[in-house]
Formats: sequence, C-alpha cells, structure tokens
Amino acid sequence: MEGEAGAASKEPKTARGEATRRAILDAAEKVIGRLGYSEASIGSITREAGVAQGTFYIYFKSKDEIFSELVREMGRSLRHRISDATADIPGRLNAEREGLRAFLAFVAEHPELYRIVQEAQFVDPEAYRAYFRAFAEGYRQGLAAAAASGEIRPGDAEIRAWILMGIARSLGERAVVFGHQTPVDELVETAHDLIVNGLKR
Amino acid sequence: MEGEAGAASKEPKTARGEATRRAILDAAEKVIGRLGYSEASIGSITREAGVAQGTFYIYFKSKDEIFSELVREMGRSLRHRISDATADIPGRLNAEREGLRAFLAFVAEHPELYRIVQEAQFVDPEAYRAYFRAFAEGYRQGLAAAAASGEIRPGDAEIRAWILMGIARSLGERAVVFGHQTPVDELVETAHDLIVNGLKR
Repeated sequence: MEGEAGAASKEPKTARGEATRRAILDAAEKVIGRLGYSEASIGSITREAGVAQGTFYIYFKSKDEIFSELVREMGRSLRHRISDATADIPGRLNAEREGLRAFLAFVAEHPELYRIVQEAQFVDPEAYRAYFRAFAEGYRQGLAAAAASGEIRPGDAEIRAWILMGIARSLGERAVVFGHQTPVDELVETAHDLIVNGLKR
Repeated sequence: MEGEAGAASKEPKTARGEATRRAILDAAEKVIGRLGYSEASIGSITREAGVAQGTFYIYFKSKDEIFSELVREMGRSLRHRISDATADIPGRLNAEREGLRAFLAFVAEHPELYRIVQEAQFVDPEAYRAYFRAFAEGYRQGLAAAAASGEIRPGDAEIRAWILMGIARSLGERAVVFGHQTPVDELVETAHDLIVNGLKR
C-alpha cells in the first residue's frame, strides 16, 4: 500500500508511541481472538483500543500486518516469560517443569493465543511456522546441552524438542479450547513425572 | 436446504453407492486439503472425483455437510488404523509404540489431514472437538487399565492421554507442515524411549 520503503513495521520513537502501539496490539489480540481474522475489522480493533481509527495507520499498514506482528509478538512474549521463569532454575529437568508452568500460566492469561496462532496457519503460514521454529530451536539447544553434560539420557534433541512442545501445546489446548478445568500445578506434575521418569513401572 | 427430515447424512444403500460416496469424500480430502475450505467448491470436488456435480447431492446436502463428514471419517479411519495396528500387541507400552507408528504412517499417506482438521476449528468447531475427544477417550481407557494392572506407573490417565496425543500430533505436524524428513521409525524410537523411560539419566 505504501510502496517498498514501507516494508518494515513502523517503529514508534517515544514511550507514549510505544504504549499506544501496545494498546492496539492488545486490542487486536482480543478482537481477532474473539471474532477471527476475517470478521475483525480495523475499526473494531481501534474501538477496543480506545483510539481513533487513523491512529492505527501510524503504527501498522494493514490488518495483514498487525496480524503477523501479533503472532510474532505473542511468540516473543511467551518465550520471554518462559526464559524469565527458568533463568535461575538449576538443572534442565527442573527448568522443563518451570517452563511448562510458565507456558500454561501464559495460556490462561491469553486464552486467544490458540485461536490466533492456529488461524495463522491459514492467514500467514510463514508467521505460523516461524512461531514454532523459534520455540523448537530454543528447546533443542537446551536439550542438546543437557544430553552432552550427561544430565539427561542421550537422544535426538531436535525430535525431543518437538515432543516436549507437543506436550505443552496439547495441555494448553485441553484447557482453553476443550475447557477442562484442571489446576496448572496438577497438569505440570503429571507431565513432569512422565517427562522425567516415563510410564514404565 | 431440504427441511428438517434431511438432518442426517444420506446413507447409500448399495456397494456401488458406497464406492461413489467414498470417491467423493476422497476427492474432498484432496481438494479441501489443497485449496482450503472457502476456496474448495462442490464443482472442484466432483471434478476431482470424476462424477457429475448432481451426483454430489445424492450423498451430501452441502459443502458444510461433506466437510463435517470428512473430519469425522478421517478420525474414524485413523482410529481404526491404530486399533488394527495395536490389536495383537501385548502390553500397553508396546501398543503405544505401534499406535504411534500407525499414526505417523497414516499422516504420511494423508498429508491433508492437518490442514483439514486445523481448519475444522474454525469451520466446524464441534467436529474439531469431537475428533480429539474420541482419541482422548480411547487413550484414557487404555492408560487407566494399564495403571490399574500395575503395568505402568500410577498417574492421571486423562491428562496422560492429552500428553501422548500431543506428542503424536506434534511429530506428525513436524513432518507434514514443517517438512522435516525423518524416517518414521526414528521418530517412533525417540518418542518411545521418552514415553517409557523419561529423560532422566
């Protein structure tokens, strides 16, 4: 729409600008999560954010762009939350447990996450793949280091990363999409026991 | 479209009718998997199936209906495939391994499965939930019996069912959506080692 120079998102230069941009992204999360991508209009997003419709275009070029940025931003926030929760935890297996707890807490606070990320598979497949690849890569590195140091059994770190992501994703979906009301700590303990000890008696 | 008496799918009464219905469903799997629900037309489905467009309406009332039936039918086929693969396998943990192998083989033969089931979350949320609930319930029963008999460690069978589903789903998606080319047996052995023994050294 704005020519090739406008390919990147418009970065706000002031704290106030950053707060407004953040408010618009938060509103997009709620509105797109509730209505879905095609039904959510820019007007409904700015109304939810409490800003004029024109303000949207100071920060984003289009609904496409804010959607892609929302998927990236949710992935970044979630990865930061997990890093923060695990930074001071000694041992990979303990970090695994606290990472899963942080993930499930984030999902409970952001119930729109699943709908938005799943819809990205259709609206912006590259954003969808980038979202999961970033998680897989972080996981893979941690698991490879723990296997190298002898803390965990040897095994393919990349495949294990997808296994552990799958566990987290499924338990989160069970809560927010399927509505099962199980305390996070109970989910974490059951998953952690399987991840650490396996099912074998 | 046809009034309330037509709420159920029209069941064919002859083997030939059943074969035609099956051919239309197989074509819908390919076309909807390739184009997505909104772009796939009934005409594109009947062309793919090699039948006249009017023939579609002998078996299905609408695109909505064939989509819902396709999700149900893919779930049924997949569950049958897994049951067949595990029926004669002694021990829950061995059955788990062969079930995962059967799942990943099915996914490789039906690369459209992920797109169709994920899109069901938006097109027909009830079909989406029913698809996973049916898997979760079968899994839960098997895990509860194995814990009761002392074959596996005690633990919540329902949460474990979601954990194991998440593992299978993630490894399948890694292959068909993310394009990682790992032999099925290697995925199965890595997952099975984690499921049986855990990561603890």
